[in-house]
Amino acid sequence: MPYQLRKNFKLFTLNSNPDLAQEIADLLDVKLGKSSITRFSDGEVQINIEESVRGADVYLVQSTSQPGNEHVMELLIMIDALKRASANTINVVIPYYGYARQDRKASSREPITAKLVANMLEKAGATHIITLDFHAPQIQGFFNLPVDQLRGGKILKKHFADKKLEDAIVVAPDNGGLGRARNLADHLNVPIGFIDKRQEEPGAPETVNIVGDIKGKNVIIIVDIVDTATTISLAADMLVENGAKAVYACCTHPVLSGESIQSIEDSALTELVVTNTIDVPEEKRTPKITILSVAPLLAEAIEHVHNEKPVTPLFE
Amino acid sequence: MPYQLRKNFKLFTLNSNPDLAQEIADLLDVKLGKSSITRFSDGEVQINIEESVRGADVYLVQSTSQPGNEHVMELLIMIDALKRASANTINVVIPYYGYARQDRKASSREPITAKLVANMLEKAGATHIITLDFHAPQIQGFFNLPVDQLRGGKILKKHFADKKLEDAIVVAPDNGGLGRARNLADHLNVPIGFIDKRQEEPGAPETVNIVGDIKGKNVIIIVDIVDTATTISLAADMLVENGAKAVYACCTHPVLSGESIQSIEDSALTELVVTNTIDVPEEKRTPKITILSVAPLLAEAIEHVHNEKPVTPLFE
Amino acid sequence: MPYQLRKNFKLFTLNSNPDLAQEIADLLDVKLGKSSITRFSDGEVQINIEESVRGADVYLVQSTSQPGNEHVMELLIMIDALKRASANTINVVIPYYGYARQDRKASSREPITAKLVANMLEKAGATHIITLDFHAPQIQGFFNLPVDQLRGGKILKKHFADKKLEDAIVVAPDNGGLGRARNLADHLNVPIGFIDKRQEEPGAPETVNIVGDIKGKNVIIIVDIVDTATTISLAADMLVENGAKAVYACCTHPVLSGESIQSIEDSALTELVVTNTIDVPEEKRTPKITILSVAPLLAEAIEHVHNEKPVTPLFE
Amino acid sequence: MPYQLRKNFKLFTLNSNPDLAQEIADLLDVKLGKSSITRFSDGEVQINIEESVRGADVYLVQSTSQPGNEHVMELLIMIDALKRASANTINVVIPYYGYARQDRKASSREPITAKLVANMLEKAGATHIITLDFHAPQIQGFFNLPVDQLRGGKILKKHFADKKLEDAIVVAPDNGGLGRARNLADHLNVPIGFIDKRQEEPGAPETVNIVGDIKGKNVIIIVDIVDTATTISLAADMLVENGAKAVYACCTHPVLSGESIQSIEDSALTELVVTNTIDVPEEKRTPKITILSVAPLLAEAIEHVHNEKPVTPLFE
Amino acid sequence: MPYQLRKNFKLFTLNSNPDLAQEIADLLDVKLGKSSITRFSDGEVQINIEESVRGADVYLVQSTSQPGNEHVMELLIMIDALKRASANTINVVIPYYGYARQDRKASSREPITAKLVANMLEKAGATHIITLDFHAPQIQGFFNLPVDQLRGGKILKKHFADKKLEDAIVVAPDNGGLGRARNLADHLNVPIGFIDKRQEEPGAPETVNIVGDIKGKNVIIIVDIVDTATTISLAADMLVENGAKAVYACCTHPVLSGESIQSIEDSALTELVVTNTIDVPEEKRTPKITILSVAPLLAEAIEHVHNEKPVTPLFE
Amino acid sequence: MPYQLRKNFKLFTLNSNPDLAQEIADLLDVKLGKSSITRFSDGEVQINIEESVRGADVYLVQSTSQPGNEHVMELLIMIDALKRASANTINVVIPYYGYARQDRKASSREPITAKLVANMLEKAGATHIITLDFHAPQIQGFFNLPVDQLRGGKILKKHFADKKLEDAIVVAPDNGGLGRARNLADHLNVPIGFIDKRQEEPGAPETVNIVGDIKGKNVIIIVDIVDTATTISLAADMLVENGAKAVYACCTHPVLSGESIQSIEDSALTELVVTNTIDVPEEKRTPKITILSVAPLLAEAIEHVHNEKPVTPLFE
Repeated sequence: MPYQLRKNFKLFTLNSNPDLAQEIADLLDVKLGKSSITRFSDGEVQINIEESVRGADVYLVQSTSQPGNEHVMELLIMIDALKRASANTINVVIPYYGYARQDRKASSREPITAKLVANMLEKAGATHIITLDFHAPQIQGFFNLPVDQLRGGKILKKHFADKKLEDAIVVAPDNGGLGRARNLADHLNVPIGFIDKRQEEPGAPETVNIVGDIKGKNVIIIVDIVDTATTISLAADMLVENGAKAVYACCTHPVLSGESIQSIEDSALTELVVTNTIDVPEEKRTPKITILSVAPLLAEAIEHVHNEKPVTPLFE
Repeated sequence: MPYQLRKNFKLFTLNSNPDLAQEIADLLDVKLGKSSITRFSDGEVQINIEESVRGADVYLVQSTSQPGNEHVMELLIMIDALKRASANTINVVIPYYGYARQDRKASSREPITAKLVANMLEKAGATHIITLDFHAPQIQGFFNLPVDQLRGGKILKKHFADKKLEDAIVVAPDNGGLGRARNLADHLNVPIGFIDKRQEEPGAPETVNIVGDIKGKNVIIIVDIVDTATTISLAADMLVENGAKAVYACCTHPVLSGESIQSIEDSALTELVVTNTIDVPEEKRTPKITILSVAPLLAEAIEHVHNEKPVTPLFE
Repeated sequence: MPYQLRKNFKLFTLNSNPDLAQEIADLLDVKLGKSSITRFSDGEVQINIEESVRGADVYLVQSTSQPGNEHVMELLIMIDALKRASANTINVVIPYYGYARQDRKASSREPITAKLVANMLEKAGATHIITLDFHAPQIQGFFNLPVDQLRGGKILKKHFADKKLEDAIVVAPDNGGLGRARNLADHLNVPIGFIDKRQEEPGAPETVNIVGDIKGKNVIIIVDIVDTATTISLAADMLVENGAKAVYACCTHPVLSGESIQSIEDSALTELVVTNTIDVPEEKRTPKITILSVAPLLAEAIEHVHNEKPVTPLFE
Repeated sequence: MPYQLRKNFKLFTLNSNPDLAQEIADLLDVKLGKSSITRFSDGEVQINIEESVRGADVYLVQSTSQPGNEHVMELLIMIDALKRASANTINVVIPYYGYARQDRKASSREPITAKLVANMLEKAGATHIITLDFHAPQIQGFFNLPVDQLRGGKILKKHFADKKLEDAIVVAPDNGGLGRARNLADHLNVPIGFIDKRQEEPGAPETVNIVGDIKGKNVIIIVDIVDTATTISLAADMLVENGAKAVYACCTHPVLSGESIQSIEDSALTELVVTNTIDVPEEKRTPKITILSVAPLLAEAIEHVHNEKPVTPLFE
Repeated sequence: MPYQLRKNFKLFTLNSNPDLAQEIADLLDVKLGKSSITRFSDGEVQINIEESVRGADVYLVQSTSQPGNEHVMELLIMIDALKRASANTINVVIPYYGYARQDRKASSREPITAKLVANMLEKAGATHIITLDFHAPQIQGFFNLPVDQLRGGKILKKHFADKKLEDAIVVAPDNGGLGRARNLADHLNVPIGFIDKRQEEPGAPETVNIVGDIKGKNVIIIVDIVDTATTISLAADMLVENGAKAVYACCTHPVLSGESIQSIEDSALTELVVTNTIDVPEEKRTPKITILSVAPLLAEAIEHVHNEKPVTPLFE
Repeated sequence: MPYQLRKNFKLFTLNSNPDLAQEIADLLDVKLGKSSITRFSDGEVQINIEESVRGADVYLVQSTSQPGNEHVMELLIMIDALKRASANTINVVIPYYGYARQDRKASSREPITAKLVANMLEKAGATHIITLDFHAPQIQGFFNLPVDQLRGGKILKKHFADKKLEDAIVVAPDNGGLGRARNLADHLNVPIGFIDKRQEEPGAPETVNIVGDIKGKNVIIIVDIVDTATTISLAADMLVENGAKAVYACCTHPVLSGESIQSIEDSALTELVVTNTIDVPEEKRTPKITILSVAPLLAEAIEHVHNEKPVTPLFE
């Protein structure tokens, strides 16, 4: 491995993505810091950091994925421990930033939990954030810290470019993700479309309409998060019913909660391509699901940050 | 006017929108607080608050519109003066929140000025924000203060509903504003479309494509901000060339910088409907431009806030 | 009920102790604020506050008991929502403050989670804390906010005083809780003892020794928290083996995790007296367990705080 | 050039004093960091930092001189960008600190803008301030950051010492600047005087009186700021009318607003000596005005700070 | 007494000026809050607040006069106690703000203690400052809180105006206090002068020179603080030697440390007029010293602040 | 001396423990930083730091022992000076942390001065705390900074182990310090006991009772602080009266206020063993008092911290 890390580097993992953290460590040719994050009998988080971090630049890998509250608390408590143990910097590597969909007051008296978590991280002692694809790019501004936001799209694009699908079209499953679709379509040099949902009048059923020509085409649906998978499953079914040849879907963050896997299996989807920003447990790894690793991207980012090189090239 | 304001209410204006502030004062049946905000010989801001604000709940009207830096500094300095003069609360009414388009790092080493200004307002002493249509709703989360964000869309919708255009369609001028278009279209019960821009390969000219059927229709373009007016002018021309019967445009915030007025005049646009969140100077008020007042909406919001009533009804 | 609350009072509950909150509401003759705290499909907290809190003095009941991380996050998110909804004050009523046993670095690189949670509550927007029996009284100093710490001991004392046990002695189960034992013993006017644990040399088995005369006596063990119940169960067995007539135990906070109930059932304990600062679920309510309510104490404290009367009398 | 700078040094300029910044760069034998600070069409500041600053110790040259609000905002936005781009330290070199005359509440409900700007700089992310001659030395205390305040007087003293004026006297143009006059006079080993202004009774014209013997002498007036130039112009005329041989004036900060140049030209002043803490535009550089450069002083200070050597020798 | 105070008013004193506090209480027709501030055996401050302050607007009288460190610590500890006891506002009335002469770095590596104390007061929980005659008016800007700075000059002026001294002249004892002298002279309608000190060359003895005509005149020296009294004693002697008829001195703040009283007694001074912002102990009250009370001024200010009336009239 | 310190190390002392600081310097083979901390005539602290600290990692030795307020203020002012002089880190070495017994609200309206002082240290600019034996370990959590708390017990244990007392027993003088007694007893492999105080009913005299068998034994009393020495003197007398052979006492922190020395001399105590965390002045060094130095422990801790080695071994 060509990476040469400056001194005082330490990489720790918590419980959300130990495999991803190990993969990053291997790429960087370092050992993961020794620590265990367990639970006391009553469920409170118990942290054991088994090597000195005094003066170290610590990189800490943790997605705030399901169970989100557990993972957030683990992260905050670990940051507190590192700060009190005299770490020099605490660089939080959050492949998936949970609660990101609560990023504004959509109706009265809602919290803005994505901001709350940002405040908690800062207050606990984080000094730098490395992440992938915030649900909204504005979440960078929730922090007063430096935030390096990497793009999972790069990895997804490569996958579909390598696939060389003929007669492809990229479709956004609703009217909010057209920018993301446009971006992928530009890369693949194919057209785009979207699925328009409309309610004629209050109480009436939703009218759904495909905008763009998908007949006989290989449709690629792109979103940032697949959670319950309802949106992409319904979209896939409708696209096939309307003449699509095959429907592929992709996302950076595979939340895959509830009945999502069943829903995907039951749908007309051919493939769902995701990354490992969230650990997909064995039982959810059906043949339809392809998992791409973000470890090389994160390893490179960590190396650049630690060695004080610009991370700009990683965004291109 | 039926409004009854609780005691200790004071309403002040700075230099961005004195007419709007006066209109609000008239609606609330109060006098504007006596103050002058002028300049010293070298251009530094000079503030004169000519009545006591000790213990008062102050409402301060100022858009951070062009000249934005002057207006931001006026606002910060006034807040400092009010805080030091023992105002009880400082409620900043910002009809147009400038710098809102710098709400994320779009490329390396960019500032997030919308967050910076939020931090400055908090640090100076603002205790509450009332605003209209942030460029991105996530900007609410840039504040740790309560923010009441009103919707200008309500006013624009009513205008077009009253107009009873036949064969109408709402068109988003690019792939980012489809949600806004969908919202207006639902209200008017008409279809939507959008203008898709695409670059076949790096260096190639942009291909522009109208998605949706606009032939013979009255097209309504909706955006949140009209700045140089290039986007809507080009869109209008293209739509007419492609068979639209007439093209209307609307926005909440009429920035109207540079050659925007000329551009609108030269274009195929029939009408541009805006609100007065930004003061449109006399010389820019051409016949094509219709200005709707947000004063009733703001007055009602201020009254609700001051009298501690929910502002929820104002969002519906 | 004689309580008259000043205006702008609102009482909300989260998910840890809804029954206790309802009991407090009944005592204060108010309705609980309408709200629901549920989960999204992926487990993230979803909050719905269904009535206005603008300008209100909100009292929010939540123990950070098991599942602690869920309860902490619910609390922080609710505070964020209340702050953004313009509540005037946010008074957090925490009958049981979890993570309190992590209140110092007992060995290297430990977190001080009790301080972290205090910082999070402050940063989120809490303005006042009402609680019962912190594990260590110094935790008050973890806050820069006013903290009113009530004493559960009052309730426990009354229970045993009413019981009129003859030949009683109060015993501390280890050498840390002698102050608490002394306090109860003074109230009941009986002697005290303690159980001394000692390790002759590293690796040797612990020698346990009862200090004080417990022969033929009714022993009352007092602790602040019963978690796994190992300590009190072992103590009870040993006391009975050494001649105690009967052994009673009491605590303010019934954490009762893991095999605690089985452990109590299997032990020589006659009765475990607890309060409802933590909700004891139906399946744990065995005949040996007596639950006393802290609702009257909390209701009185809330009334005093809200009406700006001294809470001193409640401590006596 | 003998300067050897430790690694990670970067020097950037904004728009107030590009020539001064270039001069400093030349003296330090470094290149100015590549960046452009322009305006969007609506006047909002657009920043482009064209090289990495990750881990760098950045020195940023900007006076908050006229147009002050533009220059303050440029500075704050640049600091925000540098902070978010992971600069290690952000050392703000402010040759002229504008708004410094608003450093106290001179009457009710005035802002203290000099403090506000200090707070804004800190909150934005500045870590160190290097400046010249604050209007009041107490402004150092407006910051919680290290502030190195250099003295322009050194440069002015040398100019007049080199000039070897015979029969010189230093005169303060009002009763506030006697310390500054005393300091220069000590250096030149000449006497001092001052101009006393007095109002016999409210409404009566001001009586002006020269205290000190200026007959036939070369008078040197010293102030910190020349703004409208009214004070020094009137003083010069009166001094000459009262028998002074010639009148010289000097200051560190040439604000030179409004009609100042005309006023100087029309007055009896022989020479006005200033420094380039504020850029004097070409059209104001009349023959009467002598501009001395502070670049050597600032370059030396920057080198000392960056190389962690004491800057004390620079104050002597 | 005509004062009517709004509810929730409490006035407390600490140990610096109990008589002044009592005088204020009498003027406001209230009782001083019951409290004692004593010392533990090892000298640590022990505070006993013997009445509830929950929800109260507390006014706390304490000069940070000699012993300054004791008085500062008493003040901070009392503020902490009041904050934790749920006081609504904590208004610190500091008649004399000690450490005020350390308000800038006069040489390298000096503290700015006046700013440090301001930060400590804010951090401890003070919400408002009422004071008299800061050593430098810029100290207001050391606070982010509202500061009402009253003027002792008003009281001194009245004293000398009532005295109707003939042939008076006001003299500043050095070149820094000319503004203060000018102000008093304007009020009395008399001329001013100052004492110029100058060192011909390093090591040479200081040359002292009286600027202004003091022959046969009643000279009034005005300063803000009399500490060791060396300056005014030497000045008085020199003025009398140079023909002054009599020399009076006045100041707001009688620090009177060390041998000051002896120095005054031994000097040519006729009278030293001071206020009671600092308590002058019995043994220092020689016949030459006249003490004027600031209680009426402070009482009026407190009443205005508490009743939310402008304090502007008190400055005129 | 084997210590090799990384560059930029500076060690300064203030006035509480200059001898201890010198001893540490000697052990580390460095010179104490040149500085003087004196008083102005009015008692205000005057600081003179006579060498550059720019970029240095400063270690500052000061106990906040009697006179505590003076020592706290010296410390805060020195930190302010170091921060403003651009020290890189400010590591406060506080052998004895005064005000530690005010670490909770023991009754209504008490301050928590131990927290206040922690807040002041942080706000002033301390970046790291090194201390010995906080009165309660929870005080670590009063800081958001890294705190390394060393154990004086190690030194005391060694003293008594070396003494090889026969028939020893460790006794806690009240029911709060049993843990500390247990710890020492484990080390010496001897039994423990405690003195139980009890009040039969309000108003009745306290009943005191020795729990544990002390007849004919060498009793060692251990506490953390000896202040007035009343507790240990009374305990010693009672123990001897009840048959103890001899009574030794030990503590980390010898506050020794008031009549403590007389009290010790008059008592049955054979020896009081203390450390030099607080300087014991010559006149208090009676033959009964043995002083052990913490300098080796502190020197080692400082070396470990500065060289970024774990301090864990020092705790064992």
